[in-house]
Amino acid sequence: MTIQSFFPPQRTLMGPGPSDVSPRVLSALARPTIGHLDPCFIGMMDEIKELLQYAFQTKNNFTMAVSAPGSAGMETCFVNLLTVNDTVVVCVNGVFGLRMIENVNRIGAKLVVVEGEWGRAVQPSALEAALQANPQANFVAFVHAETSTGALSDAKALCAIAKQYDCLTIVDAVTSLGGVELRVDEWQIDAVYSGSQKCLSCVPGLSPVSFSDKAVAVIQNRSTAVQSWFLDQTLVMGYWSGAGKRSYHHTAPVNSLYALHESLVILQNEGLENSWARHKAMHDKLSVGLRDLGLDFIVPESERLPQLNAVTIPQGVDDVKVRQFLLNEYNLEIGAGLGAFAGKAWRIGLMGYAARNENVVLCLAALKEALKPERQ
Amino acid sequence: MTIQSFFPPQRTLMGPGPSDVSPRVLSALARPTIGHLDPCFIGMMDEIKELLQYAFQTKNNFTMAVSAPGSAGMETCFVNLLTVNDTVVVCVNGVFGLRMIENVNRIGAKLVVVEGEWGRAVQPSALEAALQANPQANFVAFVHAETSTGALSDAKALCAIAKQYDCLTIVDAVTSLGGVELRVDEWQIDAVYSGSQKCLSCVPGLSPVSFSDKAVAVIQNRSTAVQSWFLDQTLVMGYWSGAGKRSYHHTAPVNSLYALHESLVILQNEGLENSWARHKAMHDKLSVGLRDLGLDFIVPESERLPQLNAVTIPQGVDDVKVRQFLLNEYNLEIGAGLGAFAGKAWRIGLMGYAARNENVVLCLAALKEALKPERQ
Repeated sequence: MTIQSFFPPQRTLMGPGPSDVSPRVLSALARPTIGHLDPCFIGMMDEIKELLQYAFQTKNNFTMAVSAPGSAGMETCFVNLLTVNDTVVVCVNGVFGLRMIENVNRIGAKLVVVEGEWGRAVQPSALEAALQANPQANFVAFVHAETSTGALSDAKALCAIAKQYDCLTIVDAVTSLGGVELRVDEWQIDAVYSGSQKCLSCVPGLSPVSFSDKAVAVIQNRSTAVQSWFLDQTLVMGYWSGAGKRSYHHTAPVNSLYALHESLVILQNEGLENSWARHKAMHDKLSVGLRDLGLDFIVPESERLPQLNAVTIPQGVDDVKVRQFLLNEYNLEIGAGLGAFAGKAWRIGLMGYAARNENVVLCLAALKEALKPERQ
Repeated sequence: MTIQSFFPPQRTLMGPGPSDVSPRVLSALARPTIGHLDPCFIGMMDEIKELLQYAFQTKNNFTMAVSAPGSAGMETCFVNLLTVNDTVVVCVNGVFGLRMIENVNRIGAKLVVVEGEWGRAVQPSALEAALQANPQANFVAFVHAETSTGALSDAKALCAIAKQYDCLTIVDAVTSLGGVELRVDEWQIDAVYSGSQKCLSCVPGLSPVSFSDKAVAVIQNRSTAVQSWFLDQTLVMGYWSGAGKRSYHHTAPVNSLYALHESLVILQNEGLENSWARHKAMHDKLSVGLRDLGLDFIVPESERLPQLNAVTIPQGVDDVKVRQFLLNEYNLEIGAGLGAFAGKAWRIGLMGYAARNENVVLCLAALKEALKPERQ
């Protein structure tokens, strides 16, 4: 056995994530590792907190990055907030809503499912009906931007309904953060989690989270220990305390946090609203081109995520062959369908650094070639 | 608010980890991100598996890296293997043994604690007595290299005893992997976890783990779901399956895995035995110098970890002042005491890339200056 160093190809990443990473972020990633209790590092963590507060549009004091991918961020929210005594209404319109159910079941909390259509936004009226029928419910959870289908739900409306019924809200913003409007405080989101590798265009492996004061109070007043030691935020709070003193919990992924910091500095420099507008503009451009290629969106226009474009694979077109052609001939990655859409859809991401003119025209030109009748 | 890009200082890392990272590893880290289901990436994951099998000295098919730090690796082993019906004997001789207890308690498994002395190896006779007194025990867990004290336990002997009593063994090799002899198969270790940021000298954030076939069978035959979705190895097995086909579980930390791959290629090129010998040689050199400075080891010589040297802070010497001097004047980080040794000990790491002549003489010279009477 002699294994050599690994040199990856240079891909263009237009799938559901990871998205193209800015050279500035890769450069930050490779800066010299320092200790996770080094005063310089602690200062950088404070800046990450401030930058995340901006990205999430929140003043929440407890805003930080979980040292693991977005699915650990999801679990962090659920295992810290819920106990067997709670009832949570979970709205499901794709894979990540189903994953929320997995989390609730492993906690043993009581579950009410609002079944939505895949490829559509969550219906506010369906949530309201569920809350009327289940007055004991004290949490509402849903996915803001469903990465498996490309549907954008109205988080503001859903949270407003949840609040009418005195529920705390848990929102999956993995794919929405930085790509579409998201206002944690104004919309009354109590727990939100995201991923580094979507519209922030950072490397995968970190999950930004934020908890409202109400959510923090729930966590602090638990009568049972959080079932995960690693994700126990009562311990992590001490580590990200911001009081200048960090108590040791686990070793932070130092270099990945450099990268997250840089990606958030880039977002700050561009401006959040400008970033949302850029994603929309690139989506509009891509949409025109996809229509010209005869490709239809799965999601109705008013419910579409600009940063994740799910289109139906035309009849007679070979899913795998097309994606392999794009990857092998153009170093271009687009996403396969997931869950109910496996084999039936492609997911074209325009996330963060990938939401650029260059990427849009490359994707359209390469797809045009891949779809030529003689290639099928 | 305008936050600028972060440029860390160039430190020499001789604490309990993260350790100095090789420039080769940092360079690998910054290579272009590719998709986590890209065929090239899957090929690299297969190589990581093979390289980890070499590092752990195992043929275990289920050998991979958890996408989170070492403490998540610990939790992975405990939550996948244990249920409320199991009884586990945990040997405690420092902070990380205590953390094992935290994990067992959050699972609700029955716990038998073998209390050991901090700064000493776990006593095999104490384990044997506990197993005699608790015939229902079916797991034994201990820390091979206790990072909080610098004590090395005899993993081979402890596992042999566990096997006499038909127990599966769970071993913390966070600080031992790559630094001292560790033979997972020969010693009959059933579940082992480590960290990327110790003697592998990779960036922090990943936890190599390996499960024996017996351990895999226990996981596959569970009657209850693993309490953590993110760490559920029945799901992760599909992702790291090695059959060329990956089922999606979570988004792997792509760039961190590049870095782990490179650190393991470096270890393979040096040779495992050579790496162990280098750690020992550097430890011997450091020991002579520390003795000349009048510093005493906490751990008796026969039980000392070469890669983590815990010394007693001499009376009248200001712990914080010395460490700040080293950091501010020499960009040198050594570790503070942890747990029972907080304020009483320093921990000087010689891990991986940090186990070099240059580091040893720098540390000794800087410490000599810091300890001058006029500085106290």
